[in-house]
Amino acid sequence: MFEPAPDLPRLVSFLRDGHPGWGVLHGDHVAPLPGSLRSALETAGLMAALPHAGAAIPLSEVTLTIPVPNAEKIICVGVNFPDRNAEYKDGQEAPPNPSLFIRFARSFTAHGLPLIRPPESDQLDYEGEIAIVIGTGGRRIAEAQALDHIAGLTLANEGTLRDWVRHAKFNVTQGKNFDRSGAMGPWLVPFRSPAQLEDIALETLVNGTLRQSDRTGRMIFSFRRIIAYVSTFTTLVPGDTILCGTPTGAGARLDPPVWLRPGDVVEVRVEGIGRLVNTIADE
Amino acid sequence: MFEPAPDLPRLVSFLRDGHPGWGVLHGDHVAPLPGSLRSALETAGLMAALPHAGAAIPLSEVTLTIPVPNAEKIICVGVNFPDRNAEYKDGQEAPPNPSLFIRFARSFTAHGLPLIRPPESDQLDYEGEIAIVIGTGGRRIAEAQALDHIAGLTLANEGTLRDWVRHAKFNVTQGKNFDRSGAMGPWLVPFRSPAQLEDIALETLVNGTLRQSDRTGRMIFSFRRIIAYVSTFTTLVPGDTILCGTPTGAGARLDPPVWLRPGDVVEVRVEGIGRLVNTIADE
Repeated sequence: MFEPAPDLPRLVSFLRDGHPGWGVLHGDHVAPLPGSLRSALETAGLMAALPHAGAAIPLSEVTLTIPVPNAEKIICVGVNFPDRNAEYKDGQEAPPNPSLFIRFARSFTAHGLPLIRPPESDQLDYEGEIAIVIGTGGRRIAEAQALDHIAGLTLANEGTLRDWVRHAKFNVTQGKNFDRSGAMGPWLVPFRSPAQLEDIALETLVNGTLRQSDRTGRMIFSFRRIIAYVSTFTTLVPGDTILCGTPTGAGARLDPPVWLRPGDVVEVRVEGIGRLVNTIADE
Repeated sequence: MFEPAPDLPRLVSFLRDGHPGWGVLHGDHVAPLPGSLRSALETAGLMAALPHAGAAIPLSEVTLTIPVPNAEKIICVGVNFPDRNAEYKDGQEAPPNPSLFIRFARSFTAHGLPLIRPPESDQLDYEGEIAIVIGTGGRRIAEAQALDHIAGLTLANEGTLRDWVRHAKFNVTQGKNFDRSGAMGPWLVPFRSPAQLEDIALETLVNGTLRQSDRTGRMIFSFRRIIAYVSTFTTLVPGDTILCGTPTGAGARLDPPVWLRPGDVVEVRVEGIGRLVNTIADE
């Protein structure tokens, strides 16, 4: 159930001999495509690129990157599952609008590479999420049309240094932006039907133990609402990536909190999208 | 006193026939330089580019943009002057670390173009700031060496939709990122000596009335400290732009608050850097 439908191509971005590329995955090979995933989104789209695939090369000859390494924006939604709001124990009702913060691309590593625990903190925590990638840009997109602006879906581990999100008077920027503290991937699955997002299972496992498990049907802010809201203030462009929030059960909420340690394995898996697996390593 | 020293080139970025460029300002002409300001920072540096200037063209043939329109990151420091912290009236001491948030390049317009008040809010407010542009990248930069990483200085009006910074449970992202709600420019002044930043006057005027006035010697977090702190979690790269905080006196803090309205003129001016002037227009 965590594999993409067999008729959906799995699109990966990578470095080959230090140069960025992208292509279609076929087992343990990848067939390169011209340009970048983002440039394909800016022109004829993902499906139109597929007939131009080159000869497949072994995956071992490339290093995967995040699906859109050159996205103009990576926007994250905080507190988007009912129990997550309750976890804050501040007596506040679920908020009227999504909390948003920004991550830089360099705060993410790819599938199969380690999340990096920096020497400044031992409070590295996981957050399994679904990320949507924008295909058709726009401003003030109506909720009714919002899903038409999605090109594809991927997974994120929105890794966080918990003590660094409360380092200052406000905003979580620094705790969310340590280099390679999170991950995205392994691939982008084209978005073809609302059923791909409507009520799908999202799970996070640490060393094989289920820690987060919820369904998108319970999200406080729907995918439609997120796209409409974000595009109210900023123009979305092709390749923009939106991380849509994590279920309850991050390590910070266990009593006592449990942080990720070197050697741990974190798996984020979502129905119909895939599995994103990373180990943890000290910098 | 608000003009750059006569021996410092004033470097501008622009669009000419829709193509991005940059160059040296000479009165009402600009002498184009090869590549982009960011690519110059990534290679031999700003001063090495100057001998390659082409024939000057009238400024009227270009449209100014912000100095580094393709910066990888634009990072903003909140609450960095003593009275600003007191303005929050939350009884908290000045915080131990700077509050940080991110703005997208598209949230800024250039010198001489209007700040845009969107139909969603009538609470557009100004924040005059100094912005530093990174020349030499790095991670975990020591305070003692931090100023060596600055390539140049510019001005920012960190325009904010006040009601939208409190739209959600936390983070100010949306109120800081309405398209063209802020401004940067007019030019980049190369950074040659610590005296250019040590204790300089920063002022903001609205329709000629002084609203903000302070000196960088009073900043809670020094330029050195900001660079050291930010580079603790993220790798700084050439062109990264850091907005270093605004003095007390934004419109939100007047009693009653006074918001910017179409036709208003806002001027941010800083000793030795220049004057950034924008009108306000409704979208």
